[in-house]
Amino acid sequence: MKVALLLFPGVTALDAIGPYEVLARVPGWQVEFVAAEAGPVPTDTGITSITAGTSIDEFRDPDVLLVPGGQGTREAMEDAGLLKWVGEVSGTARWTTSVCTGALVLAAAGLLEGRRATTHWLYLERLREFGAEPVAERVVTDGKIVTAAGVSAGIDMALRFVGETESRGVAEAIQLGIEYDPQPPFGSGSPDGASPDTVELVTAIAALRDDWLATRREGP
Amino acid sequence: MKVALLLFPGVTALDAIGPYEVLARVPGWQVEFVAAEAGPVPTDTGITSITAGTSIDEFRDPDVLLVPGGQGTREAMEDAGLLKWVGEVSGTARWTTSVCTGALVLAAAGLLEGRRATTHWLYLERLREFGAEPVAERVVTDGKIVTAAGVSAGIDMALRFVGETESRGVAEAIQLGIEYDPQPPFGSGSPDGASPDTVELVTAIAALRDDWLATRREGP
Repeated sequence: MKVALLLFPGVTALDAIGPYEVLARVPGWQVEFVAAEAGPVPTDTGITSITAGTSIDEFRDPDVLLVPGGQGTREAMEDAGLLKWVGEVSGTARWTTSVCTGALVLAAAGLLEGRRATTHWLYLERLREFGAEPVAERVVTDGKIVTAAGVSAGIDMALRFVGETESRGVAEAIQLGIEYDPQPPFGSGSPDGASPDTVELVTAIAALRDDWLATRREGP
Repeated sequence: MKVALLLFPGVTALDAIGPYEVLARVPGWQVEFVAAEAGPVPTDTGITSITAGTSIDEFRDPDVLLVPGGQGTREAMEDAGLLKWVGEVSGTARWTTSVCTGALVLAAAGLLEGRRATTHWLYLERLREFGAEPVAERVVTDGKIVTAAGVSAGIDMALRFVGETESRGVAEAIQLGIEYDPQPPFGSGSPDGASPDTVELVTAIAALRDDWLATRREGP
């Protein structure tokens, strides 16, 4: 299986690195980070970069495309060249997958129309703008499109994906290899489990950030 | 809080990126990837790099040191300059933390003698060689030293750490922000939960890899 993990400036690192750590461990799979240009791609925090080994022009015909999320999806959703590439690659790939707001990039490329899909809980309703049906589940599969919820959900998606497309035995071994026996300290990992105050706080911070990002892009 | 996340060639990406994604979201905390030299540091799979913003010589007096694991810890454990730096930084830091086999680097720097600690389940007993007491728990705190189990355990450790050193409210909000509501598809994330066959397979593969790495380093 040939897997392309897309990077773009402003990507959320864990969206990409979570699935990478699972998929890169499948014997025989070829996993590559790809971006507009090969080289380090800055993440959303601005304090680190993840290196793409190959440009999207050079990495042809992956069997699997994975699009992570992050605040950089805003630019990605308006990048006609990138969306064209996503659409073309998805047309020939066996599977098209996303983590977090990577689903909005798939949506902007026209790939989620009429499909059930998920994304980060904060942006779930936005999927409707693109004709998709939002589903508040950790991982949603509709035909050849697999979408995962926010950030950390990419680990669950990747393990499930390996279990279904390679073998359950390999997926179980990888889960043990990365000692994925999660023990989250709080029950606040979903809007249903978190307190109303926590949901309100995270929603307010995201709104401020989104407004700020929109202003910065529009310019003075 | 000033946090230094150490990188070295052959680091396991998720060991570092899991905690990074939590710690970098704490308002007011300064989080930096550091390495022997600033710039991209290749991970253990050889297919990507994570960029260190600063060299270890330039990033002075962190409050928190985090040492991730990966097969590159073998070289790190024999790098006298690096171990000296780890020891010095740990001496003045408020907290010294590790993920996965990063604990073996702390041990090689002499920091775990007489302490309770954990690491990746495959290497847990090795802690005894350094006078530490192995503890098969997800996160182990002994004084100012906090160690986490394999790879994905760094996320749990970081959330718990933020809850204890900053505030529970901030930690809960970050857990919601990264939608950390894990739903692992299998129960194989720990040697207790995995089938004996899976444990045997992962142990055998690790032994082969370790032998190969040892041979490669010794040369012909």
